[in-house]
Amino acid sequence: MNEKLLAGKHLWYFEYYTGGDVGLFMKIARMVHSEQTPIQRIDIFDNPTLGRVFALDGITMTTDKDEFMYHEMLAHVPMFTHPNPKNVLIIGGGDGGTLREVLRHPEVESVVLCEIDRRVVEVSKQYLKTGEAFNSDKVELVFENGAEYVKKIKNQFDVIIIDSTDPTAGEGGHLFTQDFYRACFDALKDGGVMCAEAENALYDFNWTKIAYRRIKSIFPVVKAYVGFMTTYPSGFWLYILASKGLDPIKDYRFEAARAMSQQLKYYNEELHKACFVLPNFVKRTLEESL
Amino acid sequence: MNEKLLAGKHLWYFEYYTGGDVGLFMKIARMVHSEQTPIQRIDIFDNPTLGRVFALDGITMTTDKDEFMYHEMLAHVPMFTHPNPKNVLIIGGGDGGTLREVLRHPEVESVVLCEIDRRVVEVSKQYLKTGEAFNSDKVELVFENGAEYVKKIKNQFDVIIIDSTDPTAGEGGHLFTQDFYRACFDALKDGGVMCAEAENALYDFNWTKIAYRRIKSIFPVVKAYVGFMTTYPSGFWLYILASKGLDPIKDYRFEAARAMSQQLKYYNEELHKACFVLPNFVKRTLEESL
Amino acid sequence: MNEKLLAGKHLWYFEYYTGGDVGLFMKIARMVHSEQTPIQRIDIFDNPTLGRVFALDGITMTTDKDEFMYHEMLAHVPMFTHPNPKNVLIIGGGDGGTLREVLRHPEVESVVLCEIDRRVVEVSKQYLKTGEAFNSDKVELVFENGAEYVKKIKNQFDVIIIDSTDPTAGEGGHLFTQDFYRACFDALKDGGVMCAEAENALYDFNWTKIAYRRIKSIFPVVKAYVGFMTTYPSGFWLYILASKGLDPIKDYRFEAARAMSQQLKYYNEELHKACFVLPNFVKRTLEESL
Amino acid sequence: MNEKLLAGKHLWYFEYYTGGDVGLFMKIARMVHSEQTPIQRIDIFDNPTLGRVFALDGITMTTDKDEFMYHEMLAHVPMFTHPNPKNVLIIGGGDGGTLREVLRHPEVESVVLCEIDRRVVEVSKQYLKTGEAFNSDKVELVFENGAEYVKKIKNQFDVIIIDSTDPTAGEGGHLFTQDFYRACFDALKDGGVMCAEAENALYDFNWTKIAYRRIKSIFPVVKAYVGFMTTYPSGFWLYILASKGLDPIKDYRFEAARAMSQQLKYYNEELHKACFVLPNFVKRTLEESL
Repeated sequence: MNEKLLAGKHLWYFEYYTGGDVGLFMKIARMVHSEQTPIQRIDIFDNPTLGRVFALDGITMTTDKDEFMYHEMLAHVPMFTHPNPKNVLIIGGGDGGTLREVLRHPEVESVVLCEIDRRVVEVSKQYLKTGEAFNSDKVELVFENGAEYVKKIKNQFDVIIIDSTDPTAGEGGHLFTQDFYRACFDALKDGGVMCAEAENALYDFNWTKIAYRRIKSIFPVVKAYVGFMTTYPSGFWLYILASKGLDPIKDYRFEAARAMSQQLKYYNEELHKACFVLPNFVKRTLEESL
Repeated sequence: MNEKLLAGKHLWYFEYYTGGDVGLFMKIARMVHSEQTPIQRIDIFDNPTLGRVFALDGITMTTDKDEFMYHEMLAHVPMFTHPNPKNVLIIGGGDGGTLREVLRHPEVESVVLCEIDRRVVEVSKQYLKTGEAFNSDKVELVFENGAEYVKKIKNQFDVIIIDSTDPTAGEGGHLFTQDFYRACFDALKDGGVMCAEAENALYDFNWTKIAYRRIKSIFPVVKAYVGFMTTYPSGFWLYILASKGLDPIKDYRFEAARAMSQQLKYYNEELHKACFVLPNFVKRTLEESL
Repeated sequence: MNEKLLAGKHLWYFEYYTGGDVGLFMKIARMVHSEQTPIQRIDIFDNPTLGRVFALDGITMTTDKDEFMYHEMLAHVPMFTHPNPKNVLIIGGGDGGTLREVLRHPEVESVVLCEIDRRVVEVSKQYLKTGEAFNSDKVELVFENGAEYVKKIKNQFDVIIIDSTDPTAGEGGHLFTQDFYRACFDALKDGGVMCAEAENALYDFNWTKIAYRRIKSIFPVVKAYVGFMTTYPSGFWLYILASKGLDPIKDYRFEAARAMSQQLKYYNEELHKACFVLPNFVKRTLEESL
Repeated sequence: MNEKLLAGKHLWYFEYYTGGDVGLFMKIARMVHSEQTPIQRIDIFDNPTLGRVFALDGITMTTDKDEFMYHEMLAHVPMFTHPNPKNVLIIGGGDGGTLREVLRHPEVESVVLCEIDRRVVEVSKQYLKTGEAFNSDKVELVFENGAEYVKKIKNQFDVIIIDSTDPTAGEGGHLFTQDFYRACFDALKDGGVMCAEAENALYDFNWTKIAYRRIKSIFPVVKAYVGFMTTYPSGFWLYILASKGLDPIKDYRFEAARAMSQQLKYYNEELHKACFVLPNFVKRTLEESL
């Protein structure tokens, strides 16, 4: 990056975490793009340490430096739990990062990515490395509220990945309702697997509990897992895997996961199991939430 | 906390992460204590979300909300790796949190806590819940540079825990040298176990590599493990366990760990193993650092 | 100031100006005192450039560096307009700065200082240089809402100085009502002079207009004047002088003002006139407010 | 401005005043333009309260809300001091604000505006209201270091206005040297008048003293004056008027100033005199600087 840009310290980004009294700040070395869409505010800027940063409504979605942590954990745990994930639905994920990970799987024949905000996909293609995933022929883009879209689909997908923004931002709240999770269940084929990002264990743990309880009421197998996501609030991210029967620990494809992990930066075949070992307070809180 | 205090938004704490262009901000609802000691700056304040916060030289050491994550992972992994930890040395740790966790172990007969800054212990006793651990009769306080102290000790401790501040703050750098690690080796009895906090995987990963390489050159068994520490830079914390022969995964006391985990908020007997499963980039970087 | 304190940059004070999207930030080198009284939040801290800073509810009241600008302009313009100010009432002014300036006038026999918050006077005496003024035998302290106090007084003061906090903070709003200004009129002797701080021309100009219109409806002579106040919002401060007949420009004591200006840092006998020359937008806005 | 833009609070601009421990912050509702030229960093953004803001190297140059204060005071005091200002040179002033004020004077036949950074003029024309002034036929643009340009000119201008950026930013320092002031003297016709912005009385007062002393050593008549400039550091701005003989107070065109003041927002014929009445500390410091 240009040295003079690095020297300035007059433009800053502040992400206020839920509660409003703690948050992350980042220097803006260069403002790349800023836009108010009908749905939300998009900001893209460069930070000397984190590289390009992408934010929606003042909430960090991706940074060059660490987006792999989130996208690998969100995608590969359900993808390797399913024995043969041919048809995949990604709800949200307009930056393309989850899509990139899904497309690594050779079994995949088609991916529908349902993003509520067309502009997110457009700016990602223009400004973000993750946006390169949209070049694949296997991808079908649907620009619609994910909760509306999934209601219309029955028995079609092997894996559904919910890569939503925060429930408090933009239209993210629609993706945390019981109706939505039920519609996902119905949209999955027999043997299907769903995975949802489920917020963090410090500032938004209540949303984790809500999502866990609601998904538990619909799916027979539900397990939470954890992963580091260093620029998300607290760095301590939760995911919920649900299936119509498959167990993510007993049934996952260990050898395939081991083979792919060579090309990955975070996920590997051992982590697939280890990530389901929860710290006590997480385990207890989720149990009590039922 | 007083409602009027919560309403104010005029006093803020900024922790600048290494590099200076990313960091965490916290509202100061109440400034509790602020002091420049001969060694470092101490600040203690209350935040509505995180509770009481304790910082040295502008680097967060503990918050009521999440200090357990760090202290449990730093203490119990080495303590349960050792079959009978009677004599323990804590270097640093003047807030008392690691001490509290060590003292949960009934085998412990004595703990020496060697803290360079007497004032840290004094203000912790006065203002922090973690400071209550200093009331134990088993504790001997030594106010000295840990690197100097440990050089004088031979064959005395079962477990040494290095609970240092950042290598860039105060006198923290002394605790990342090869000489220091060798002195720790010599201060341990046969069968001894050492554990050191080893910074984070995003902003200070270079220090992790330095510590790992140096400890590897001295101890026969060295393994890195990870844990969430939500108010430390990136939330992604690393620890290095080293021993004169014991393996933290094969040799740890599973049943004792399971029994104690009832009273813990983070650590449990399963996490003891799972925390050694490293994300690919961490594993590769540490291997390449040798 | 201690060099190590100067080096830290982790504690900051933010004053948000009206509107909430512009403001002044100051580094806190040392937090001196922080307290929630029944009325308001008090904070006192040291800044390398500005010296000791005193704030109420997150609004800067005084700094060592520039408090003289405000206090001299608020006190000496009315004091030199009156031919013989023996009995003076200060409403607010609990820091002691206005009192110090009033006490420079040898004619003064007694000053009543009516401050709503006893703690403001107490901490000013303990921590602020301006607090030294309270040592004078001529001062009578009344701890009461100024609006309540002045209603009970008739025909007693030569000069009344309203040294309020912002109308939006604490109980400051009481001191901007028509009833209050009428009570001040009645509390003044014949020939009496009143002077009120009247906010700034950028962020709170509406309050200036309100105060001007209300005072105009009660006093026969009303004139606004201006002065720099470099750490108040915009730096552009307004004051309103009102009298029962005396004209601040034609009738002021030029020679006495000249004599005293030797010991002053801001006010002088020429500025006494010049400060009534208003920039066009101020003049027009005040005229239109009637 | 768009309501949703107003609601966001994640992008902020921080101007650090000299010393680095005090400054102004502004919310960035919309980032309009950001660019690193060979000379300096340009940023243009919208703030809900201040309107469009233009900054060079993190130092605020203009805001819609208050740029008139500075530009009127910088231009009209020298322009009305001169009896017939036909040929005017503006050094700096690439935003066009000073030019707009100069062009109000019907006597003006030509204005040379010498701006070191061509991009400042270009973005001002594109994004700032002040940039409209560049449409005038009377303007000749020279893109060159003002100190170099003026050295080549002799006996050509009636009025020279130095509208520089801060001496510490970009190439601003060149415009505070004795050689530069002497070259300005030589570039003026007999009877010529020069006026320079001269920083503020709180954070950069040393530069005022330096400029005052250097100009005094060259021009026979030198007088400092003051004006509010609410978004510049401290809000308390200084200007230095110098001439080959004309006195700004005795010789200025009172009637013409009165006539024009109808269309101005700050300057008027009375303020022309009043602005030369200095607070004591300013007067004393400038006297002592000689």
